[in-house]
Amino acid sequence: MSSTVGQVIKCKAAVAWEAGKPLVIEEVEVAPPQAGEVRLKILFTSLCHTDVYFWEAKGQTPLFPRIFGHEAGGIVESVGEGVTHLQPGDHALPVFTGECGECPHCKSEESNMCDLLRINTDRGVMLQDGKSRFSIKGQPIHHFVGTSTFSEYTVVHAGCVAKINPAAPLDKVCVLSCGICTGLGATVNVAKPKPGSSVAIFGLGAVGLAAAEGARISGAKRIIGVDLVSSRFELAKKFGVNEFVNPKEHNKPVQEVIAEMTDGGVDRAVECTGSIQAMVSAFECVHDGWGVAVLVGVPNKDDAFKTHPMNFLNERTLKGTFYGNYKPRTDLPDVVEKYMKGELELEKFITHTIPFSEINKAFDYMLKGESIRCIIRMEE
Amino acid sequence: MSSTVGQVIKCKAAVAWEAGKPLVIEEVEVAPPQAGEVRLKILFTSLCHTDVYFWEAKGQTPLFPRIFGHEAGGIVESVGEGVTHLQPGDHALPVFTGECGECPHCKSEESNMCDLLRINTDRGVMLQDGKSRFSIKGQPIHHFVGTSTFSEYTVVHAGCVAKINPAAPLDKVCVLSCGICTGLGATVNVAKPKPGSSVAIFGLGAVGLAAAEGARISGAKRIIGVDLVSSRFELAKKFGVNEFVNPKEHNKPVQEVIAEMTDGGVDRAVECTGSIQAMVSAFECVHDGWGVAVLVGVPNKDDAFKTHPMNFLNERTLKGTFYGNYKPRTDLPDVVEKYMKGELELEKFITHTIPFSEINKAFDYMLKGESIRCIIRMEE
Repeated sequence: MSSTVGQVIKCKAAVAWEAGKPLVIEEVEVAPPQAGEVRLKILFTSLCHTDVYFWEAKGQTPLFPRIFGHEAGGIVESVGEGVTHLQPGDHALPVFTGECGECPHCKSEESNMCDLLRINTDRGVMLQDGKSRFSIKGQPIHHFVGTSTFSEYTVVHAGCVAKINPAAPLDKVCVLSCGICTGLGATVNVAKPKPGSSVAIFGLGAVGLAAAEGARISGAKRIIGVDLVSSRFELAKKFGVNEFVNPKEHNKPVQEVIAEMTDGGVDRAVECTGSIQAMVSAFECVHDGWGVAVLVGVPNKDDAFKTHPMNFLNERTLKGTFYGNYKPRTDLPDVVEKYMKGELELEKFITHTIPFSEINKAFDYMLKGESIRCIIRMEE
Repeated sequence: MSSTVGQVIKCKAAVAWEAGKPLVIEEVEVAPPQAGEVRLKILFTSLCHTDVYFWEAKGQTPLFPRIFGHEAGGIVESVGEGVTHLQPGDHALPVFTGECGECPHCKSEESNMCDLLRINTDRGVMLQDGKSRFSIKGQPIHHFVGTSTFSEYTVVHAGCVAKINPAAPLDKVCVLSCGICTGLGATVNVAKPKPGSSVAIFGLGAVGLAAAEGARISGAKRIIGVDLVSSRFELAKKFGVNEFVNPKEHNKPVQEVIAEMTDGGVDRAVECTGSIQAMVSAFECVHDGWGVAVLVGVPNKDDAFKTHPMNFLNERTLKGTFYGNYKPRTDLPDVVEKYMKGELELEKFITHTIPFSEINKAFDYMLKGESIRCIIRMEE
């Protein structure tokens, strides 16, 4: 690969020209990485709801043409000036949020919300110079959350790239770049259920199933799935969910149903839907004295969380998390090792695999609710 | 004292015959302790806002005649059947909430909200038989929160009695039975500020000052007092408060003022007023990524806590606490030792001392806002 260092690379990328329209595989030019940046050859990428959300562009200012994609695994092709923790040939996961290592958040043991490299969905350019590294015949193509992995090559801020064990299969661990770590970390890093405890998981999509997987790994005894779609329970069993509640099947608030099932409430709850009603239920269904609820799902901008303050006074805790509280560079290599040791099971999240040329199928699977994760093989 | 064992004791008690009327020192008969109970000779007691609140009886069903008092230090006179952790002569602190040792809360490391002995302000009798141990000429006099320490002798459930170091001066450590531990524990057990960190304390009454003392002991660098009465700042300095904000002196929400003072928010906040507005401010003034707010003050029953859920998603934590998360029997002896070692300073909380005969003065001092704690000497 050394011949491409410092050169513009021409390669294939799936370009979203307009909101909601199928992506088009185009030949793009990918500029070399600038200071503090890395150019990655992407081998595998997967589709996450966040890609679909910004591709549909129903709730935000549209930014097109754009190259989506933020769950991926690849190999470092070249590094820009000043990048010391990565070198060509390293196996790596790009992440939509970063770790500059210098800001108060990076220096805090308790936060992963890097001031410099925190997710920014509105910015379609690189931080360094406010420009895009992608172009088609001179026309700049926007980046997406600093990753744009629906391209054979992409340029990413080095602080957003985790170096991982080269023995790890990139077609599996690529899913750790976003949703799976978000749910997993919400449980293992934030809710921290004890062995033998009870955990309620609100929402059994990919993030919720990953949260359940975290509860399973933690040794939780009762893992109660809560979802409006009862058919999801069957699949969720693979992830440790062993009880199920569909709020639509009860004529009282789901928090009351859960409190009755568990003699006063669950030990932990993890909210993965983003529905404000589910957030309130997740908080109010935890046991007084020790219950902890963790919010993961992203709410609408006008939502208000509302509860009686006595629910807090009775020693309940409510926390939120972003990317499962993982610091991308520091923590992702360990999550990969958990998979390598067989503690964390990733295969069951992967329901589909397709070649890059068929990338629009991944959108169909997700929109129809058929997939958890669809892996896209770039080299085909 | 052995001559009184098993006998009714006649002694002086301050009886509240009616809501809001001065207490009257009466001769009362105190029955012997029944199974699982302890009779204590009270040497020192102090007045807390909760006594005053239920004595005024503006917000609840009045229960009179009643013997108030729940912060006290005394000596065990006799024990009922089955009581093994206490014996006559032990120095002890009665507490308004208890520790049965058997329920899920007592067995949990995370909770102190004992199912059996949790505070009950409506019950004016003993749990064992639903009767009072106090009477005047055959007329039962109600208990208050299971302690009724405004009496030379009182009967308390053994699970609500902490045995402490007999070398500890009871005229000082008696204040640990309620308010001081509530504030102190909210900081040291729940908020857990790190050395060098910033802490905002909402409300500079006795509980808030104890929360500040907890921040001082924890090594917090910036302790920001928030109160509507600016004159409280001077006194609060003794408790480690080194910055002050009066929300009335600003034309924007106090959480914004604090965020500006602290480059994004304090590391920890402790709310000791019970005002719903202060609760929201305390939560919204903590830093994203790692901020923790702890609610201590008791809200009105119709209050609703309301905030944008993104405030949680940005990795803020909101917790509530009851009695500073201390388990009375297990933890109080250690708090007393902290005082004995000079780590915890109690003298500065004690602003007044009066003989039992003048107990109504303690109510006056508190109602005028002149006292933090007024110690009442029973043997005078």
